[in-house]
Amino acid sequence: MRLELDPSLNTADYTYSHRLRVRFAETDAMGIVHHSRYLPYLEEARVEYLRHLGHPYHVLRAEGVDYAVLEAFVQYRLPLKFDDVVDVHLRLGAATRATFQIAYLLTVDGQVRATAVTVHGCVNPDGRPVRMPAWLLALGD
Amino acid sequence: MRLELDPSLNTADYTYSHRLRVRFAETDAMGIVHHSRYLPYLEEARVEYLRHLGHPYHVLRAEGVDYAVLEAFVQYRLPLKFDDVVDVHLRLGAATRATFQIAYLLTVDGQVRATAVTVHGCVNPDGRPVRMPAWLLALGD
Amino acid sequence: MRLELDPSLNTADYTYSHRLRVRFAETDAMGIVHHSRYLPYLEEARVEYLRHLGHPYHVLRAEGVDYAVLEAFVQYRLPLKFDDVVDVHLRLGAATRATFQIAYLLTVDGQVRATAVTVHGCVNPDGRPVRMPAWLLALGD
Amino acid sequence: MRLELDPSLNTADYTYSHRLRVRFAETDAMGIVHHSRYLPYLEEARVEYLRHLGHPYHVLRAEGVDYAVLEAFVQYRLPLKFDDVVDVHLRLGAATRATFQIAYLLTVDGQVRATAVTVHGCVNPDGRPVRMPAWLLALGD
Repeated sequence: MRLELDPSLNTADYTYSHRLRVRFAETDAMGIVHHSRYLPYLEEARVEYLRHLGHPYHVLRAEGVDYAVLEAFVQYRLPLKFDDVVDVHLRLGAATRATFQIAYLLTVDGQVRATAVTVHGCVNPDGRPVRMPAWLLALGD
Repeated sequence: MRLELDPSLNTADYTYSHRLRVRFAETDAMGIVHHSRYLPYLEEARVEYLRHLGHPYHVLRAEGVDYAVLEAFVQYRLPLKFDDVVDVHLRLGAATRATFQIAYLLTVDGQVRATAVTVHGCVNPDGRPVRMPAWLLALGD
Repeated sequence: MRLELDPSLNTADYTYSHRLRVRFAETDAMGIVHHSRYLPYLEEARVEYLRHLGHPYHVLRAEGVDYAVLEAFVQYRLPLKFDDVVDVHLRLGAATRATFQIAYLLTVDGQVRATAVTVHGCVNPDGRPVRMPAWLLALGD
Repeated sequence: MRLELDPSLNTADYTYSHRLRVRFAETDAMGIVHHSRYLPYLEEARVEYLRHLGHPYHVLRAEGVDYAVLEAFVQYRLPLKFDDVVDVHLRLGAATRATFQIAYLLTVDGQVRATAVTVHGCVNPDGRPVRMPAWLLALGD
């Protein structure tokens, strides 16, 4: 397990935040958001973060760098429900030459709902590991 | 609208049947299978039908023919629920040189739950229409 | 088939519009948005439309009225791709005492990508048909 | 983090195995199964395991016990592709009075593709923690 980050419960510890709203299609028969649906939320936040950094994901993909997900961890603390407006806070951390990790905090009206960590590696279109872009390496803490 | 088939409610009118079981992840907060989740069921049945015909989809894709979905129609008659064992009956029909249509009947223990029709066109990997394979054209009724 | 609406290709024929962005998780191995993923887009637009009308869906659900999807039809004209910003235009039409229909037009930068129609019935939490709220009946054209 | 299990890469270390086939709808524009789609695979395997144990999930839910997912971890080692036949091996472990954990190994033709761990708590229909059924407590190692 490469997972190293321990996501803080304090929004002030995060450098970027993306807001989204829960779709009905993302709920399950327990009346809450299905646990698998959190991962696309994290991904959407990552994509917006890259755009915010001036490195839109579709440009990176066109340049032949993809960000494979190597590991994902989610801790579900309180359920998300239909129509909840979710703030996905994220922080880039723990970059090495081959991988980087992102910590996430999901809140609704400031209330903690979940934390998460994803570990990524840079790969080419064939799925082979490639060197991480310098700008990305520079960002890690 | 190219949609022409009128799916029969009689399983005897279908030439192939594929069985699957509803996943919990496919339900929604109404306690039933979300209406968007029927389309992957139809697709799974199509894939198994092509394999049954001796033309597995991954071979067709490797040969440069993809089956774009041009239209899809579903009529939801009775809900599907978690753990239901669903029989997806299908029948190829109404092929032209450029498109073909498939009619579907979804049953659980013989009880009709839904009908559907999909319209497909053959395309190359760039998404451009290509001539339909002869074996497929020959199958249409 | 109850489907009656014929969705116009002219955005001026629609009364409401909702904007969303395609997630990477919604694409498939053909490099385009999977055809099943359009239905949650339509649903998200309906939910926002109800909120815009002053009848948020979660309030309606709390009042014991749910909007079952009876039929859905999508015509895929040009693919949607990752990161596309999609405008989902919609128009309520063809309401009866028991059902109502909605027509949709999906555009990206003004270019038509898809049209769709959904047919809905009002049901109680047990799935039994109930009378349509007066305000909804009044809205239909 | 409650996560304690360290999933073995040896199929002999697992007590149950469930086979499924990758759907086209589960792939993404990288041409592989989207990382969020592994979680429903794990869930499907859990459901079949409970059935195998004589405690079908829908019976447990009818009896008022639900298995909330508290944590989920996946390590993606090699991609899964469309039409892959995946064996999801699982082993129940590390049960306490309030939670239990399951370790997973995903293989295709015996080749390791992913490992995973999920942590669960028993809850009633309102989402409140309840005591774990005795039969389940007895199974943990």
